[in-house]
Amino acid sequence: MSWTIDVDDLPDLARGAALLGTGGGGDPTIGMLLVKAAIEEHGPVTILDPSELDDDALVIPTAQMGAPTVVLERIPAGPEPLGALRRLEQHLGRTATATMPIECGGINSMIPLLVGATGGLPVVDADGMGRAFPELQMETFSVYGVPGSPLAISDENGHGVVIDTGHDNRQMEWLARGVTIRLGGVAYIAEYAMTGRQVKDTAVPRTLSLALSVGRAVRQAREEHRDPVAALAEAFSQTIYTHLRELFDGKVVDVERRTVDGFAKGRAVVQGADGSALEIAFQNENLVARRDGRLVAVVPDLVCVLDAETAEPITTERLRYGQRVRVIGVSTPDLMRTPEALAVFGPSCFGLDDAFVPVEDLHDRVPAGAR
Amino acid sequence: MSWTIDVDDLPDLARGAALLGTGGGGDPTIGMLLVKAAIEEHGPVTILDPSELDDDALVIPTAQMGAPTVVLERIPAGPEPLGALRRLEQHLGRTATATMPIECGGINSMIPLLVGATGGLPVVDADGMGRAFPELQMETFSVYGVPGSPLAISDENGHGVVIDTGHDNRQMEWLARGVTIRLGGVAYIAEYAMTGRQVKDTAVPRTLSLALSVGRAVRQAREEHRDPVAALAEAFSQTIYTHLRELFDGKVVDVERRTVDGFAKGRAVVQGADGSALEIAFQNENLVARRDGRLVAVVPDLVCVLDAETAEPITTERLRYGQRVRVIGVSTPDLMRTPEALAVFGPSCFGLDDAFVPVEDLHDRVPAGAR
Repeated sequence: MSWTIDVDDLPDLARGAALLGTGGGGDPTIGMLLVKAAIEEHGPVTILDPSELDDDALVIPTAQMGAPTVVLERIPAGPEPLGALRRLEQHLGRTATATMPIECGGINSMIPLLVGATGGLPVVDADGMGRAFPELQMETFSVYGVPGSPLAISDENGHGVVIDTGHDNRQMEWLARGVTIRLGGVAYIAEYAMTGRQVKDTAVPRTLSLALSVGRAVRQAREEHRDPVAALAEAFSQTIYTHLRELFDGKVVDVERRTVDGFAKGRAVVQGADGSALEIAFQNENLVARRDGRLVAVVPDLVCVLDAETAEPITTERLRYGQRVRVIGVSTPDLMRTPEALAVFGPSCFGLDDAFVPVEDLHDRVPAGAR
Repeated sequence: MSWTIDVDDLPDLARGAALLGTGGGGDPTIGMLLVKAAIEEHGPVTILDPSELDDDALVIPTAQMGAPTVVLERIPAGPEPLGALRRLEQHLGRTATATMPIECGGINSMIPLLVGATGGLPVVDADGMGRAFPELQMETFSVYGVPGSPLAISDENGHGVVIDTGHDNRQMEWLARGVTIRLGGVAYIAEYAMTGRQVKDTAVPRTLSLALSVGRAVRQAREEHRDPVAALAEAFSQTIYTHLRELFDGKVVDVERRTVDGFAKGRAVVQGADGSALEIAFQNENLVARRDGRLVAVVPDLVCVLDAETAEPITTERLRYGQRVRVIGVSTPDLMRTPEALAVFGPSCFGLDDAFVPVEDLHDRVPAGAR
């Protein structure tokens, strides 16, 4: 059931990862170019289905940490992410069987592929966020009992930090964020080292496959002059991300964005032809969408802003006044909506007063193709 | 040549350490109480002369890191400093022969004694600053080629961090300071792990003995109704800190103090009976003293503020309007005044425009007893 990712798959994967990044997670294009160069040098990357892992395999997830706005300005040279994995292996005194994404949205879909290509490691088709989230404790791994510590950080100078906060994943995030800020706003991390059994029990499965199929659906719809949002709805309906709802259609009329405490925080307003407005608040990722003050989708469900013509996902740092966009909401899998999960990455974790309501319950089904 | 420190020695040691702290280094009283409790439980601490160390012995210095103003409010429970040493031992895969101070001024004269008592380790009679300094790269160890990395940090929750910046001790300080701030402003560290040979080549020797003799001189002078500053001058003249000069005598009329970036920064003004004024600038420690605008002592030489009656040293966080004080300057040993040393902890390292001039060259000898 293992498969390989080759250079030709990368544009679709990047598009799907940008979409699952829900506006954040960092632009996967930069990561894609690094993975492309690495695959051209070292060959395709093997992707393992979680079910293929031995229960006692050691899986070390790898990622980039930092504000997306800074990542745009400080491009990794290539070997840094593998450096983080090697540093954690050295600390643990064990060798990893495979690496894995901690989030399936944005650049962090790509970083483990870079580690896989440069380090000769397979990559597990699963992740710990099922989307992108701004903080390291916001992981299904964390929700279901895997400690993030020890966490290894590596930078482009070969410097490194190992953080161990026991089971306190929030404090781990706090310290790692502080180090990342002092490293200039971007760092490479390895964390949540876990067994194959723990991957099967706590990860959101098959999210690399999901990103690839979602990215491919948009491209094929474009090539065949079909509505790309309808194609997306069809692609999601065949996965554990079952429901897509189109939330809004209009023009970006306002964007506020600041880099605060190592995060890109802000809001965007989209105005419709009928004068109604959709407001989206974000902290790296889109968190909540309100239409004329009424909740239409809220974290952990996905809120994605797409180019109105091409359905190309638009990250928060690329939002600009005047863009014509379509905004969609997508339901997240059951393991991301449990009370335990909502306690770690539900609305209240971002300072929002809204209770979580599934996106499919906030809307009657309006097939996107019927617009 | 080894000797022991027992409970009865601690008040003299604390007084001497406060003086060598040149206003900073944290109030040693808190550390003294912890060491007292530890010695009462575990017995006296063995102090090793540097010359007694095997060349291949492993010495791991230990310290507290943080702004003195915060240390006053967050008293360590006791086991945290040993936790930092154990974490570094684990990281290195080796066991320490002894611990050692990184600075001989302030609370960090006491922390290694706490580690020695609780961990059953001897403490080397030497340090890396020959006084107190605010930053971790400001060590003779660093000046003469010993890397500070890996550095281990430990807190009262048993959480820990290991930082490795290779030979870049300034970046090590930058990252460790960031972690310390996020830990609430105080942390316990082990760093500059080195061989016995390296201790002999790079440490300022016999500075625990120095602190003890200086603290004892003040107490004995008081008991015998002699001038304590004259007694101090006599005590220093028998060490590699040869020259003491009395810089000023007056009343504190102004103190400015802020906690900035994890440091206590500010200035104090002392006014004399004749209307002249001495201004002292500090960053945790006193850095420079100017009398009516004229330089009278500058870092790395010691600038110490003493109570006018008792000659008890006054730390910057205890400076208050109206205090009657005597201010002294003390020369530092040759290895702290080389061009290499001044490049790491000379005036320019603190943003001062003054060139370093030895305190003995700035003053004609005026015997303190002749006042």
